[in-house]
Amino acid sequence: MKMLINVPETVVADALRGLAAAHPELTVDVENRVIVRRDAPVAGQVGLVSGGGSGHEPLHGGFVGPGMLSAACPGEVFTSPVPDQMLRAAAAVDSGAGVLFIVKNYTGDVLNFDMAAEMAEDEGIQVAKVLVNDDVAVTDSLYTAGRRGTGATLFVEKIAGAAAAEGMPLERVEAIARQVNEGSRSFGIALSACSTPAKGSPTFDLPPGELELGIGIHGEPGRERRAMMTSGEIAEAAVEAVVEDLQPRNPVLVLVNGMGATPLLELYGFNAEVHRVLAQRGVPVARVLVGNYVTSLDMAGASLTLCQVDDELLRLYDAPVKTPGLRWGV
Amino acid sequence: MKMLINVPETVVADALRGLAAAHPELTVDVENRVIVRRDAPVAGQVGLVSGGGSGHEPLHGGFVGPGMLSAACPGEVFTSPVPDQMLRAAAAVDSGAGVLFIVKNYTGDVLNFDMAAEMAEDEGIQVAKVLVNDDVAVTDSLYTAGRRGTGATLFVEKIAGAAAAEGMPLERVEAIARQVNEGSRSFGIALSACSTPAKGSPTFDLPPGELELGIGIHGEPGRERRAMMTSGEIAEAAVEAVVEDLQPRNPVLVLVNGMGATPLLELYGFNAEVHRVLAQRGVPVARVLVGNYVTSLDMAGASLTLCQVDDELLRLYDAPVKTPGLRWGV
Repeated sequence: MKMLINVPETVVADALRGLAAAHPELTVDVENRVIVRRDAPVAGQVGLVSGGGSGHEPLHGGFVGPGMLSAACPGEVFTSPVPDQMLRAAAAVDSGAGVLFIVKNYTGDVLNFDMAAEMAEDEGIQVAKVLVNDDVAVTDSLYTAGRRGTGATLFVEKIAGAAAAEGMPLERVEAIARQVNEGSRSFGIALSACSTPAKGSPTFDLPPGELELGIGIHGEPGRERRAMMTSGEIAEAAVEAVVEDLQPRNPVLVLVNGMGATPLLELYGFNAEVHRVLAQRGVPVARVLVGNYVTSLDMAGASLTLCQVDDELLRLYDAPVKTPGLRWGV
Repeated sequence: MKMLINVPETVVADALRGLAAAHPELTVDVENRVIVRRDAPVAGQVGLVSGGGSGHEPLHGGFVGPGMLSAACPGEVFTSPVPDQMLRAAAAVDSGAGVLFIVKNYTGDVLNFDMAAEMAEDEGIQVAKVLVNDDVAVTDSLYTAGRRGTGATLFVEKIAGAAAAEGMPLERVEAIARQVNEGSRSFGIALSACSTPAKGSPTFDLPPGELELGIGIHGEPGRERRAMMTSGEIAEAAVEAVVEDLQPRNPVLVLVNGMGATPLLELYGFNAEVHRVLAQRGVPVARVLVGNYVTSLDMAGASLTLCQVDDELLRLYDAPVKTPGLRWGV
């Protein structure tokens, strides 16, 4: 698999140098692998820190900025960042109002954020943690005990980020982040495997004419393989999986997310089918995002995330945000 | 090649339905294939209309909105829209201040926009046209007489859109669009071919271990094939091709554009190398955009566009824009 890289060993550092060059409003510590909004810490505001393996861009580094994350810690590709990164990020963004760690449910991430939280508390930083575990496809996977964290991470980071920007205290920001996660479900499908720079070839074998339902964001196995389906059939399977589990009573935010290599033309077509099925099921839609937000390198495919919102969560979702990957209102 | 579609025949209509579902601030005429900002025509403002074959999303439909295009006409995949679409768009956005057609230099687009301009003039709409021809790679191609229009289209639409939003008269908006095009150059590289829905397989054969320099946005041939190069070597080739031709005297806007299937992680790494080479050549950088903006379906690869700007063009570039694909300041 050909890649636009120098050598696999420098892929993450190269990307961080490129992020720094494109976004002077961020402080990018390439050596220590921490991305921080330049004006951090912001007096009186809770700091939001997330992170995880690289290869899911714009998640997480592309979501650092006013109204969303205060800092992000990128690991190697598909590999958890280490506690030192998280501690460094927490120290950089803590204004005294405390720090919220937003952790996708993967074993390595959970362990390392736990350790970083202990280290930060030892240094006098108040830390709360929220686990994101929205993927309904499988309960345990190669990387996870329990459900995986995928697309809902965007909604948790956006909405909790708005809560922090309004000056809400740590326990309130944490409660809102937890509410967003609990109101969110995701389901992904893959048309092709992704290739990591280190391996240089697809991480699994998906034959011509087949797709995988319930895929994770690292190419880990999903629920089942099937003969290729139409966009409409895939939308029916994804909406059913998500809605049956979520049983939404409120309007939902919809994220139709590309895994990396699927053209936007196809994602919009898929969005049309998702909306058709949601309308059939009587699920009201409050807001829609279509694009590559929580990716899996060059995987072809898409995921659907629904997040049910009350008036407060919708107001916070609509609040201004200014990051490389998500921006409105400023 | 597996695709997230229903059938090839409905790909464009499906995508338009999905665009409408995601963006209630746009009026999407699925049957007649015209995307118009909902508040058009805007009194006293020149209307901006562009369009071209589908498969390059977010270009052009994703660039409709305040501060950028007034309307866009999507053709079939890699196929020019027809004059009726352009006439309909012009009529929808003309406030009496006239309409500017922004036309990428492909034979079909040029002929059809010419015809539409005549039809619109017959209906009493004042029309000006600007041709975008920024690609330095080849002079003629399968689709073009003269240089192709590629990444600079984004800058022309953004900056002329800001000029129109300020209420500048048609001849001034046209002159600014022309200035942006004349100050812009692009160069693209492909690591893989793209597959159109109709064909269902790659549009050309690019063997393992080779890349193509100077690729167009339809998979049409470029300058030459070479053994695979590093990101740094590709950046050197792209910057050299663009800078030698442009000979910039002013700071430049930089667009590091993904062709569709190249991960954002790789695009940021490439951006680092582009900046390294620009710094070596002493070219000052004013602003940077990294992402998938002018794509070629699922092609892997990237293009570099530089646009030299004076103070006025930079001010217009920085002005607020609110579209699905590009948004800041609002």
